[in-house]
Amino acid sequence: MTSDEIRSAIFHMGEQARAASRVLTTLSANQKNEILLAMADAVLAREKEILEANALDMAAAVEVGLSSAMQDRLRLDPQRVAAMAQGIREVADLHDPVGEVLREWTRPNGIRLQKKRTPIGVIGIIFESRPNVTADAAVLCFKTGNATILRGGKEAIHSNRAIAAALQEGGATKGLPENSIQLIPFTDRESVRYLCEMDKYLDVLIPRGGAGLIETVVSMARMPVIKHYDGICHVYVDRSADLDMAVSIVVNSKVQKPSVCNALETLLVDRQIAETFIPRVAEALTEKNVELRGDEIFRSLAGVDTKPAEESDWRTEYLDYILSVKSVDGVGEAIDHINHYGSHHTDTIVASDSTTAERFLLEVDSACVFWNASTRFADGGEFGFGAEIGISTDKLHARGPMGLEELCSYKYLIYGDGQLRGVSYEPPCTP
Amino acid sequence: MTSDEIRSAIFHMGEQARAASRVLTTLSANQKNEILLAMADAVLAREKEILEANALDMAAAVEVGLSSAMQDRLRLDPQRVAAMAQGIREVADLHDPVGEVLREWTRPNGIRLQKKRTPIGVIGIIFESRPNVTADAAVLCFKTGNATILRGGKEAIHSNRAIAAALQEGGATKGLPENSIQLIPFTDRESVRYLCEMDKYLDVLIPRGGAGLIETVVSMARMPVIKHYDGICHVYVDRSADLDMAVSIVVNSKVQKPSVCNALETLLVDRQIAETFIPRVAEALTEKNVELRGDEIFRSLAGVDTKPAEESDWRTEYLDYILSVKSVDGVGEAIDHINHYGSHHTDTIVASDSTTAERFLLEVDSACVFWNASTRFADGGEFGFGAEIGISTDKLHARGPMGLEELCSYKYLIYGDGQLRGVSYEPPCTP
Repeated sequence: MTSDEIRSAIFHMGEQARAASRVLTTLSANQKNEILLAMADAVLAREKEILEANALDMAAAVEVGLSSAMQDRLRLDPQRVAAMAQGIREVADLHDPVGEVLREWTRPNGIRLQKKRTPIGVIGIIFESRPNVTADAAVLCFKTGNATILRGGKEAIHSNRAIAAALQEGGATKGLPENSIQLIPFTDRESVRYLCEMDKYLDVLIPRGGAGLIETVVSMARMPVIKHYDGICHVYVDRSADLDMAVSIVVNSKVQKPSVCNALETLLVDRQIAETFIPRVAEALTEKNVELRGDEIFRSLAGVDTKPAEESDWRTEYLDYILSVKSVDGVGEAIDHINHYGSHHTDTIVASDSTTAERFLLEVDSACVFWNASTRFADGGEFGFGAEIGISTDKLHARGPMGLEELCSYKYLIYGDGQLRGVSYEPPCTP
Repeated sequence: MTSDEIRSAIFHMGEQARAASRVLTTLSANQKNEILLAMADAVLAREKEILEANALDMAAAVEVGLSSAMQDRLRLDPQRVAAMAQGIREVADLHDPVGEVLREWTRPNGIRLQKKRTPIGVIGIIFESRPNVTADAAVLCFKTGNATILRGGKEAIHSNRAIAAALQEGGATKGLPENSIQLIPFTDRESVRYLCEMDKYLDVLIPRGGAGLIETVVSMARMPVIKHYDGICHVYVDRSADLDMAVSIVVNSKVQKPSVCNALETLLVDRQIAETFIPRVAEALTEKNVELRGDEIFRSLAGVDTKPAEESDWRTEYLDYILSVKSVDGVGEAIDHINHYGSHHTDTIVASDSTTAERFLLEVDSACVFWNASTRFADGGEFGFGAEIGISTDKLHARGPMGLEELCSYKYLIYGDGQLRGVSYEPPCTP
């Protein structure tokens, strides 16, 4: 395809998605849920087609020598297809936030105002190798009345096409509006560029993938982008901590699932308890096969094998059995370190002194700040949100676990009986 | 200044603003209000310096031949300085949304969660000729605990410097943290580019000015941008309307203050009432010296002097005594026209049939949708928000009148007593 052909195909999809979003606004929660259940049925019914398509992607992956981790992300099997269908059913069961009245009030002139939750409109999702994102993302966006344009990685194109077809055709049997869910059917890289330029039709772009993908989208996009950057998560163990609790929170935060964004990456230890705490925590972590990279004080007290931490370690999301450790002079230095080196994702203080803990909660500039609990709870499911589309490291619109409510916008509905504006007041929108 | 010098100056201001934002997080509402009152006092006390600085800008404006409208926007006098100080006092009186608990709940494992309102962090404001924006924007951002970097137009640079100095030095007497409010002291155009690149330090950019400025910022910015685009506002008069009410709402929406973004620009008339309504509304508008540009049906029934409307009229924000008028085949066509040609700002239906009105309220995709009231009420003051920084035409984070709450972010504070994550659940942040 030429660049012009790609552009024109993408913009045509945008126009169609905008039209679909108008129809989606009018669907009731029940209608949407029936459609979702039909989508889940279709995914199960088409297991064979989906697995055959996935086999094509897997064969290509072997041919180009994709890493085994990448191959594992790409692979579908009957269990994974069943989990995909089950995930859709669970979304159908969730409360529909669209139409909720967020606030309602009446002005002295008798005008009644409602601030009401609405769909956003059209959402673009750009993602990498995991084909299940096709279903997860499309279904969450549909539940909230949004049209979606999906752009998956080229490694998963056959799987993505088969899953999208199941959602579209399954949904259509129960009235899914045409073009509500569109997958870009080709894999040319330029499609990302044209999506980023299409602010006329896309209300928001959500890149789901590594820092490289997010960077690319941020630098090109004309519309809002919701970013899910790294989780460089910290645990700070204060002088007032219960040290048994501290050891267990550190170990759980690090090793319960090291490959995810809410896993611990840097441990900060109050120097006042360094002598007692460091040997204990170092032993516990070493037992779990965690490689330790520490500052001088940590290394001198650890009593186990450690490596020196470099400046770059404080900025690294290992996603592995590696932990950097630094001693700090109390909660103030801990806060400064976290705000400087962290990724504003998730951080924990272990402390029994409430003044210290409240200071940490107030001053650490992160989406999720914990007192005496594992960082691993920073998660939409654990928060009780049901499904999540990711954990936002942005501060606007969505911060932290991003569930159905964060896939919504709002508008003001204003009810009058002929009110006219009588006094002169100048809104600042006209400079 | 060389481009490198400008870049380095802007990034230095960014670093300082980030440091200031850390301190701002710790101020109480009372401390902030005392600082605001000291700022208001300083603006009044420095009236002479501010007017002298403004005289320099006015002299330059005459020299370069700025239009009289532009000169009027630029001009300060004792009344305008007093109004600026009064505006600051009114912001001090507003409720401080920072620290509000938006939601609080406990999970089955005993973890307690709070979703709490916080400052955003560092806000960049790029504005054009009106120097009072320096005070208005800085003060709203400060009230909500945000640091600001202001970049005003070069025509107002002397006035802006004098006002910023009053805010900074007045605030400092009551403990305004250093660098909380910074004005870029030079006017090189490249400063806009470097602000747009500085996502490391700026959490959001708010351009306050015409479509050209917003376009420039949108195309360059790496951080979220909150846009206040045009208001192409509609009134649709349905067959079920009370026609007296309809005439008065149309006239008020158009002429009560035509130069602002919530003024009416296009009138849509249900064909079923065209014969009775059009002559009446045309006469009333003509009496108010409104130029009318209409479709065939309107022109044939108006009974007064009209011009033909072109396609481009449906996309034009006149901000003047001009109105385009189109006849439509009921509420469905009205909704389609508004969603296609409008700017998603503010639209009104005049109707007595509630099914028709509810459909309009649901399907019109605009920030403010009115039933039986003037479009001129789309305004933070009229909504009861106190001051507003503008009317957002975005759908993410802030939509419609943008007051103090929309200058805030939120974070999750999570209180545990040693909880560990035991079950395996995979957050989708790791693709």
